[in-house]
Amino acid sequence: MKLLRVGTAGAERPALLDAGGTLRDLSGLVPDIDGALLADGAGLDRIRAAAESGTLPALDADGLRTGPPLAGIGKIVCIGLNYHDHARETGAEPPAEPVVFLKAPDTVVGPDDTVLVPRGSTSTDWEVELAVVIGRTARYLDTPREALACVAGYTVAHDVSEREFQMERGGTWDKGKNCETFTPLGPWLVTADEVPDPQRLALRLWVNGELKQDGSTAEQIFPVAEVVRYVSRFMTLYPGDVVSTGTPAGVALGRPAPKPYLRAGDVVELEVEGLGRQRQELKDA
Amino acid sequence: MKLLRVGTAGAERPALLDAGGTLRDLSGLVPDIDGALLADGAGLDRIRAAAESGTLPALDADGLRTGPPLAGIGKIVCIGLNYHDHARETGAEPPAEPVVFLKAPDTVVGPDDTVLVPRGSTSTDWEVELAVVIGRTARYLDTPREALACVAGYTVAHDVSEREFQMERGGTWDKGKNCETFTPLGPWLVTADEVPDPQRLALRLWVNGELKQDGSTAEQIFPVAEVVRYVSRFMTLYPGDVVSTGTPAGVALGRPAPKPYLRAGDVVELEVEGLGRQRQELKDA
Repeated sequence: MKLLRVGTAGAERPALLDAGGTLRDLSGLVPDIDGALLADGAGLDRIRAAAESGTLPALDADGLRTGPPLAGIGKIVCIGLNYHDHARETGAEPPAEPVVFLKAPDTVVGPDDTVLVPRGSTSTDWEVELAVVIGRTARYLDTPREALACVAGYTVAHDVSEREFQMERGGTWDKGKNCETFTPLGPWLVTADEVPDPQRLALRLWVNGELKQDGSTAEQIFPVAEVVRYVSRFMTLYPGDVVSTGTPAGVALGRPAPKPYLRAGDVVELEVEGLGRQRQELKDA
Repeated sequence: MKLLRVGTAGAERPALLDAGGTLRDLSGLVPDIDGALLADGAGLDRIRAAAESGTLPALDADGLRTGPPLAGIGKIVCIGLNYHDHARETGAEPPAEPVVFLKAPDTVVGPDDTVLVPRGSTSTDWEVELAVVIGRTARYLDTPREALACVAGYTVAHDVSEREFQMERGGTWDKGKNCETFTPLGPWLVTADEVPDPQRLALRLWVNGELKQDGSTAEQIFPVAEVVRYVSRFMTLYPGDVVSTGTPAGVALGRPAPKPYLRAGDVVELEVEGLGRQRQELKDA
């Protein structure tokens, strides 16, 4: 199923994009798309049954904003340098263990919302990523198979990054990863049953219509299942948490100088195969 | 005022410790101690008036657990290496700019709750810290004075840290900072009016009764107001966010080998002057 949330920011309601491409209202059926729903198989079954019976009311998509596909996100765990080609372009060695950092849930916006270039930014960069949405508590998992059983679904994440804040201002990467609007998410939460192999998904990103990233999750150093297993050994993942699994080659950081960092007025579009497409216009904060 | 939350984990109710040391029930007056309450001056005024009029019902503190003093924490921003003496003991140069990292709110427990030594841990360490609770949105602030106006109050944070996970497993510090139960918080949220100078507070921590940390916020490299101002230039701080301002010297990491890291059965006690005291027993995860 393709689950999403539509409406003005902070007042989204749950919806479903059905197999025929019609938007269906779920607000009579479930309170929201969140960790509680994902942890509750019965709630998802109710949606599936209603979708199949054709009883869900249609929604007029015209002019309707798409919000982030998940409410009440607990934490966002990100994996750095997780693609062979991206590690190469940044000049980094492929890491021996997954590189882990956090983004605050308050940086999340909808897939087509404005992204703000932070004040004082010289190096705002793009990163298309496959994000995993947790549906079952993951704690000290032993095997990749157990890890996949904790995945409720997948979505597209844009891990916007300010490179100078991230790498030249001392300390960890978090200063360059947590600026306002830096995590567009969505459009859909696609349930795991519709993504039979998360290691065969194409990822693409364009800036002002020009293709910049054109990768595949086949290039991941640590595949989705291993990432979730690994992270669960250090921190407990709860339903409604998001794990974003890294970006392929093609970011501005990897280009020769002058690096083509983002500016107000630029338009970024990105997609992950089967998970939908995002489009953001950049503005100054 | 000393605000707190009492009751079983996940079902705490808001309370006040009055000037006479009596615990008072706030659950008839406000839904919880959270960002919404702190942002709403009228809510705090109502509590203050009720406390002064003596109409708040007393609560029997006997056997009552104290929870974290704040519900619905959005994010926890931590400052690393922020005391001259602690930077020296770790062998690090004093940073030129504040070192920033994040802890996930799901690591927060009450001040006297059990702390779990993670599986595979060799180096679980303690850190007593002064934590700031944000009451007003802080975004691109220019001056320390503006920053202090965004502070609703202060509390004690224990920034438990697994040093091997933090520093020897690749990537950022986050792997060693976000293990389950790694952020005891409380007992009280002390409103800013009762902390006239946050740069003159003693901090102390004991392990099994032996004094290990005995510092003062006067040793902070970047004082509270500068930390909040600085962080607001990179990420927006919202009411209900917490900023933990670093630890003084005396952690296990700073001792000669064999370093006295924590094990199951150890008891840690810690306090910040005027903000109350925590006590945790360590158990294996």
